Amino acid sequence: MAVLDFWFEFASTYSYPAAMRVEKVAAAAGVTVRWRPFLLGPIFGAQGWNDSPFNIYPVKGKYMWRDLERICAKEGLPLTLPPVRFPQNGLKAARLTLVGVREGWAPAFVRAVYTANFAEQKDITDDAVLGIALRAAGADPDAAVAAANTAENKAGLKTQTEAAIALGIFGAPAFLIDDELFWGNDRLDDAIEWAKRITA
Amino acid sequence: MAVLDFWFEFASTYSYPAAMRVEKVAAAAGVTVRWRPFLLGPIFGAQGWNDSPFNIYPVKGKYMWRDLERICAKEGLPLTLPPVRFPQNGLKAARLTLVGVREGWAPAFVRAVYTANFAEQKDITDDAVLGIALRAAGADPDAAVAAANTAENKAGLKTQTEAAIALGIFGAPAFLIDDELFWGNDRLDDAIEWAKRITA
Repeated sequence: MAVLDFWFEFASTYSYPAAMRVEKVAAAAGVTVRWRPFLLGPIFGAQGWNDSPFNIYPVKGKYMWRDLERICAKEGLPLTLPPVRFPQNGLKAARLTLVGVREGWAPAFVRAVYTANFAEQKDITDDAVLGIALRAAGADPDAAVAAANTAENKAGLKTQTEAAIALGIFGAPAFLIDDELFWGNDRLDDAIEWAKRITA
Repeated sequence: MAVLDFWFEFASTYSYPAAMRVEKVAAAAGVTVRWRPFLLGPIFGAQGWNDSPFNIYPVKGKYMWRDLERICAKEGLPLTLPPVRFPQNGLKAARLTLVGVREGWAPAFVRAVYTANFAEQKDITDDAVLGIALRAAGADPDAAVAAANTAENKAGLKTQTEAAIALGIFGAPAFLIDDELFWGNDRLDDAIEWAKRITA
C-alpha cells in the first residue's frame, strides 16, 4: 500500500486546508497517510527570515489571505482572518502531535488545532486550548502533555525537522511519496495521483 | 464577455506552461485574454532580491525545476533544463510583445519565445532568435524591432510594470479578472472559473 508522508507546520496557513482534507482523499485512493509535524522556524531562519514570509512581504501576505479565503470557501471550511496573531507558535502543538502519532490520535488532534487557529481565533500556545483539542481527539491531556515534554520527545521534533531539511523540504505543507516531493496544498491531488501510480 | 488579464514575464518558468495553455482554456470558456508582459526585476529588487528567488534559495529552485518537469510532462510540453542560463533577460521580448499586442501577433510570438527559452535552450536576448519568433508569429522583424525601440514603447513597458505593482502583483504568472488576483500557473483554472461566474 502506498504511503504519503504529510509534512506540516501549525503556523502554516496552507497546511490548514491540507490537514483537513488529506485523510479523506488518501483513503479514497487507498493511500496511507503518515503525519509528520515539523518546524519551519529553523528552515526560514537559515534563509535569513525571522518571521513568516507573508509578513516580510506584505503584498504576498495580502494575496495569501485572499487566496486562502477562496480555497476555504471552495472546500466548505470556516476561516476567520486575521487570527489572534500570525503566525502562531506551533511548538507545543507539534510536540503533542508526535505523541499522538505514536498513540493514534494525531489526525483528530491536528485538525482540532488547525480549526482553533484558523477558524476560531484561539491561541494555540494556550494549554487550555490544547487541552480541548486533546480531549476532542480522545487523548488524556495530562498524560499527553507529560509525554510531549520529555527530553526524548523534544529531541524527536528536532530530529524530525532535520529530516525535513535533509529531504529538501523548504515550506509547508509538503507531501512525499518515497523521495518524490510535492509542495503546497495545491499539489495534494498530484501527490495522491503519484502514490496511486507507483502502487498500480 | 469576461476578460482575463494574463500578466507574465519571460524569465518566469511557471509563466511558460501558462502562456502555452491560457488561450485554449479561455476560448473554451468564452473568456477573452489580454496579454500583459511586465518585468519582475523592479518588483524583486524592491524586495531586496537581485536574482531569481529560485537561485537565491537553491533548495526551492531544485524543487521548482522538478515541479515544472512534472507539469510539462502532464501537459505534453517539451522542457529542457537547465536552460542556457537562468533567468534569461526578457526585456527585449517584453518590449516586442507590447508591439504585438497592438498589432495582434502577441500570443504566437510569446509562445515562440517561451518555447525558444524553455524547450530549445535558445538565448532570448539574441536578435536572431527573436527574429525567428517574430516571423513565426507573422510579424515583420525589422518593423517590430523599430517599433519596440521607440521611447514611447519603452516607457509603455515601464508603465505596465508600475501598473502590475499597483494591482498587487508580486510574481508571475498572474491572472486578473477585474481586481480579483490569481497567482501562479496552478491558479489558471480557478481564474477561468471566476471569469465564467461573473459573466453568468
